[in-house]
Amino acid sequence: MPFIDATALTDYAHTILVRSGMEEDKAAATAEILVEGDMIGHDTHGVSLISWYVDALADGTLNGKGSYDVLVDKGSTFVWDGNLLPGAWLFLKALDQAMDRVADHGVVSVALRNCHHTCALSAYLRRVTERGYIAQISCSNPAAARVAPYGGRVPLLTPNPIAMGFPTKSDPVLVDVSSSITTTTMTQTLAKKGERFPEPWALTAEGEPTDDPAQVTDHGGTLMSLGGALKGHKGFGLALMVDLLGQGLSGKGRADTPPGGLTQNAFLQVIDPNAFMGLEAFAEQSEFTANACRTNPPAKGNDGPVRVPGDSAARKRRAALDRGVALSDDLWAKLGRVSDKTGIARPAPLV
Amino acid sequence: MPFIDATALTDYAHTILVRSGMEEDKAAATAEILVEGDMIGHDTHGVSLISWYVDALADGTLNGKGSYDVLVDKGSTFVWDGNLLPGAWLFLKALDQAMDRVADHGVVSVALRNCHHTCALSAYLRRVTERGYIAQISCSNPAAARVAPYGGRVPLLTPNPIAMGFPTKSDPVLVDVSSSITTTTMTQTLAKKGERFPEPWALTAEGEPTDDPAQVTDHGGTLMSLGGALKGHKGFGLALMVDLLGQGLSGKGRADTPPGGLTQNAFLQVIDPNAFMGLEAFAEQSEFTANACRTNPPAKGNDGPVRVPGDSAARKRRAALDRGVALSDDLWAKLGRVSDKTGIARPAPLV
Repeated sequence: MPFIDATALTDYAHTILVRSGMEEDKAAATAEILVEGDMIGHDTHGVSLISWYVDALADGTLNGKGSYDVLVDKGSTFVWDGNLLPGAWLFLKALDQAMDRVADHGVVSVALRNCHHTCALSAYLRRVTERGYIAQISCSNPAAARVAPYGGRVPLLTPNPIAMGFPTKSDPVLVDVSSSITTTTMTQTLAKKGERFPEPWALTAEGEPTDDPAQVTDHGGTLMSLGGALKGHKGFGLALMVDLLGQGLSGKGRADTPPGGLTQNAFLQVIDPNAFMGLEAFAEQSEFTANACRTNPPAKGNDGPVRVPGDSAARKRRAALDRGVALSDDLWAKLGRVSDKTGIARPAPLV
Repeated sequence: MPFIDATALTDYAHTILVRSGMEEDKAAATAEILVEGDMIGHDTHGVSLISWYVDALADGTLNGKGSYDVLVDKGSTFVWDGNLLPGAWLFLKALDQAMDRVADHGVVSVALRNCHHTCALSAYLRRVTERGYIAQISCSNPAAARVAPYGGRVPLLTPNPIAMGFPTKSDPVLVDVSSSITTTTMTQTLAKKGERFPEPWALTAEGEPTDDPAQVTDHGGTLMSLGGALKGHKGFGLALMVDLLGQGLSGKGRADTPPGGLTQNAFLQVIDPNAFMGLEAFAEQSEFTANACRTNPPAKGNDGPVRVPGDSAARKRRAALDRGVALSDDLWAKLGRVSDKTGIARPAPLV
């Protein structure tokens, strides 16, 4: 497993994207967020995506040039049409604007439509928590359908993740949960290997619980909502929240999006604790609660200490900055094929 | 099963609360929200709670007189100390202020500390959606511990519900989900009857999955986070979001709340779609998506049509306004005992 210097890996991704037709600033944002994904352990949403992005730039489904359209701007709220530009660039721009404004407004809220792929939501949170703010990001793809409404059987919704980052006195709490039990990527990976879910995490096309991912990938089944057969109304409720915030507030969603392709909607919010009781008071609580979780006695069968969401990301990120970003052999080989295609050499592994 | 006129039931609850020492306005708000709970089918959080409230007024744990303290007010954000006044009165006051301000700010956000019991969160949403706004409410009780952090085994968190209401062109979408699989009330009810959960929804004191509610009520076990044994990190993440918003932003939470009793924290947010692409554009999407869910073909084994969160509440509420609020015989008998104690006669059932 090669270890690659984070800056060298970012430069590599950046160069490939620029040579593939993406403008400098968009390529820089995308490379940064992809490498952040790898650094925090979300390798399904890291530089492994770059070959898809290269293809998408070539076929025009990903727009590498130009800017968003400002549809509404009221200071504390704004709405952009992303024109299918890179999700990473759009999110970083939106979060930067929200952070620049939040001291004036306390809370800044953003609805985005027509973003291309938005990478790992948790990869955006640290830059907000490092400035002492709380971040919320959720997204959905109204052009896709993988999850049935609870009680139904035809795919209609997407896994609709919601992520929040909270500052503490040490590592941030970084929550990132999908409203379906498992993800599309995990389902495709298991189906390709001919493996099963450990529990019924999907429904057949008839709406019956199944542990067979191929029912979803090949036979019209759906991903089950968080909560499963008996409590899936909860995941369904969360999915509706994500759909309605990103699609309803941006004024474009399932009502007017033809199926097929990728056009993501998002809702982002930055909250300044200083508009409430202050960052110090906030961090007093968040640090206490996080530590109370970490020191909770492990359940029988759990070898390690209890981890707070974000702990694993923080540990992996420190290791990546220290020893280089660990890339799997499969991923390294995949990047080799990207290099062959683009003529841009992979960075040398660290020794 | 008696059917009681909604206004008569509200007046009854109001009178009892006033005679028990609650000020008029607090009693009116509490009675309204309790009866709304019964009308929308949340009978565990309806007038059945009144005997507890009467006792709590008597022993001073529920404060029936006075007002909240404004700790921070920046227009678009405010923080109140609720001084253990009724949660219903505090929430209605906070939502009314947020709605009065939201046209100016787009989004108004509120953190509350030291609320007494906050009733059913979904009982507050309709008054917000009826004005064309989106409501978000979440709450936690830092004085209580019923849920272990995922991977742990000692109770630390509470079921931490999160609720959101969205306007449509017809009935609102009303989401109300707890971040644990089941609730404290359900667990106590089943344990008392000696029954089991249909699946392992709890953990023993050692942290092993169990379907026995008595493990929680009598043997130091905990409620399992939404997602269960394999995916409970998701419910745990949601619970942390609720804890940190309500406790961190109000500056009082688990770090400084001794265990025992009830002192709830909450985070409320009102969003005006007109600060984004407008209510009409919002309702276009929400109405479409809700109807796309309702017309989704039912899964095998599901007799009825697919229901959107809020559909059942809307149907029950219409029936309650039409034919009276249906109270179970057990609840009617319980109110009889409250009447005996307070000397205030129950309203006559409708014929």
